[in-house]
Amino acid sequence: MTKINENFLKLPGNYLFAEIARRVSAYSAEHPDKKLIRLGIGDVTRPLVPAITEAMHRAVDEMGRAETFRGYGPEQGYEFLRKCIVEKDYRPLGVELSPDEVFVSDGAKSDCGNIGDIFAADNIVAVCDPVYTVYVDTNVMAGRAGEYVDGRWTKLLYMPCTEDNHFTPMPPMERADLIYLCFPNNPTGATATREQLRIWVQYALKNESVILYDAAYKSYISQEDIPRSIYEIEGAKECAIEFCSFSKTAGFTGTRCAYTVVPKALRRGEAQLNALWNRRQTTKFNGVPYVVQRGAEAAYSEEGKRQLREVIAYYMNNARVIREGLAAAGLTVYGGVNAPYIWAKIPGGGSSWDFFDLLLKEANVVTTPGAGFGPSGEGYIRLTAFGDAMATREAVERIEAFLKK
Amino acid sequence: MTKINENFLKLPGNYLFAEIARRVSAYSAEHPDKKLIRLGIGDVTRPLVPAITEAMHRAVDEMGRAETFRGYGPEQGYEFLRKCIVEKDYRPLGVELSPDEVFVSDGAKSDCGNIGDIFAADNIVAVCDPVYTVYVDTNVMAGRAGEYVDGRWTKLLYMPCTEDNHFTPMPPMERADLIYLCFPNNPTGATATREQLRIWVQYALKNESVILYDAAYKSYISQEDIPRSIYEIEGAKECAIEFCSFSKTAGFTGTRCAYTVVPKALRRGEAQLNALWNRRQTTKFNGVPYVVQRGAEAAYSEEGKRQLREVIAYYMNNARVIREGLAAAGLTVYGGVNAPYIWAKIPGGGSSWDFFDLLLKEANVVTTPGAGFGPSGEGYIRLTAFGDAMATREAVERIEAFLKK
Repeated sequence: MTKINENFLKLPGNYLFAEIARRVSAYSAEHPDKKLIRLGIGDVTRPLVPAITEAMHRAVDEMGRAETFRGYGPEQGYEFLRKCIVEKDYRPLGVELSPDEVFVSDGAKSDCGNIGDIFAADNIVAVCDPVYTVYVDTNVMAGRAGEYVDGRWTKLLYMPCTEDNHFTPMPPMERADLIYLCFPNNPTGATATREQLRIWVQYALKNESVILYDAAYKSYISQEDIPRSIYEIEGAKECAIEFCSFSKTAGFTGTRCAYTVVPKALRRGEAQLNALWNRRQTTKFNGVPYVVQRGAEAAYSEEGKRQLREVIAYYMNNARVIREGLAAAGLTVYGGVNAPYIWAKIPGGGSSWDFFDLLLKEANVVTTPGAGFGPSGEGYIRLTAFGDAMATREAVERIEAFLKK
Repeated sequence: MTKINENFLKLPGNYLFAEIARRVSAYSAEHPDKKLIRLGIGDVTRPLVPAITEAMHRAVDEMGRAETFRGYGPEQGYEFLRKCIVEKDYRPLGVELSPDEVFVSDGAKSDCGNIGDIFAADNIVAVCDPVYTVYVDTNVMAGRAGEYVDGRWTKLLYMPCTEDNHFTPMPPMERADLIYLCFPNNPTGATATREQLRIWVQYALKNESVILYDAAYKSYISQEDIPRSIYEIEGAKECAIEFCSFSKTAGFTGTRCAYTVVPKALRRGEAQLNALWNRRQTTKFNGVPYVVQRGAEAAYSEEGKRQLREVIAYYMNNARVIREGLAAAGLTVYGGVNAPYIWAKIPGGGSSWDFFDLLLKEANVVTTPGAGFGPSGEGYIRLTAFGDAMATREAVERIEAFLKK
């Protein structure tokens, strides 16, 4: 009989956002008159900017004419886009990459998950706690997480991110082989300083570990001294893979384009990881739609950059409204300065699912309970800055009013 | 130290189409005056039809307006497209599926590769020989293929497809757990009859195996009695997963959309494979671009269907020209009737790489050597019908002239 991958059966049933959706629709069904405001899921709401839609229209026209039609593109992405990324995302940071160190894909979620293909099943994996659940679940599937006991996976190394360490952990005492870091962080909104990343790179070089660095929110960094890329740190090309995405940078959550950097200098044993990932992608992937890659390219034009700066400013104004509003109402809040996420401490130390329910029922605002991101998320809720500006302001007022009751 | 997946190091260096590209560019560099005609890679050349580009333009406009903008879509694809597939691809065949048995994705290559995630590493895998290399290489990566010895993987079960069995194998005597079948076949162009598929379904039900059925070329079937889907066979929903694609049906090789059917009736042990694949896709994938899904939907409109029938007729006329031309020149040819591939026997039983080189140098036509698809492909070359009609006719004339020398 065909044997299934038994690791799948270990995964707990309810995905965080599915459980939120369930509670929200149950409440809505009982109270159809209530107007809910959703600051839960981290999904953008502003439309694609004109520079991008114009480029996509041009590309659709090209696809409709025999002379300019494109069939299979390079699995790794078109040179025009890989060059843009190298020249306009990395060169300004003082980071030199070659285009064939950049792999264009359909999403950072796909890449963060699929990257596991090139690693053995017996590596020790370290994750932040709280954490973006994809890092954990994909390692469960690959057999690297062990068993789920009391809300924790027995083989994972959890790195608590708490107020004490400003939500940015130091390397563990133990050896970890694969380390997932995400800065600016989802869900806490924390960032890592140059010095903190330097300590991580030194740890990874010493232990010959690989850092899987998720920089999907780098466009939201507003403070000058915060690194946008782990490659700003010396030695990182020998120990880090970096995941970036157009989802939050250019509003591409429904348009799907991302990229992953695997430097050629990154070797483990005899293997060059760039060659392994190239083999994985050419065998199991067929590239991103031409029309989408032309849209992504337009994000780097002068017009595109200007228009996208306005979109990010719009969201970051929401972040400020949430942060300042909740602080004025007496909550302790983190994030929202270099990230579109606000991580708010629940007053009186209540449970995050209880507080989620309270805000849903009393303020009609949907948030995300911190416990959904891991044990150390308990006692917090996450709010996102991706909503409509008016609705965000109203949500904050409703929460303030509820807290003052 | 981080341990890599050692299986990657077992993969032979040169991917078939990379080796072809190398030989072609070496020849072109030496003979820059020669005009090559490429009938090698199976990539479409006709532009997207108007019904599709119009739908994509409308969708791009929607993405540019706040009121109609779409962020994350369902990982499994939008309901509008899943419904189209169920109602317009399957219902006319007498096959009833529910939309949540259909998973829209970025490509059949991705799905054929990623499907391995849900199966254990110790399943016995059977593949046709010759075969689309992705089935083999992805199983090598997953550790199911064993070692590469004398051009064969020690743990794979090869099913030779030869003139004797009309390139459609019977089930093996041994037990196989995962069986890759592709009809209409790439590379041989062979199809399976209803009776042949019935024997396969019975074998899979008896052995509790899973058939991975690649139907990417189903739109090219011209004979009425050839099944378009394995689900036309009773019992197939209990033992088969089917991969389909818009690549060859609607010219989407550069636009990227496909779908995979995992029936809910398909269970192994306690597990429902639909639930496993759903978990895999929701964890490691974020859906297909909205604009692309609207384009795929338009392939099912009356206008879209009519326009696409013309495109397929164009390619199938090329297939006829190749088939009849080579036969007239004395070659034994297969395929090209229900498939866009022609599988031609090399006169005098020469090596397929030698004959590839001969056609490249003497006729300036690029083909694909059969040996690149597996040991039983030796002695054949593959030609594709996806070229320009005039160029295809000229290529056939050149080959005829060369053979008559």
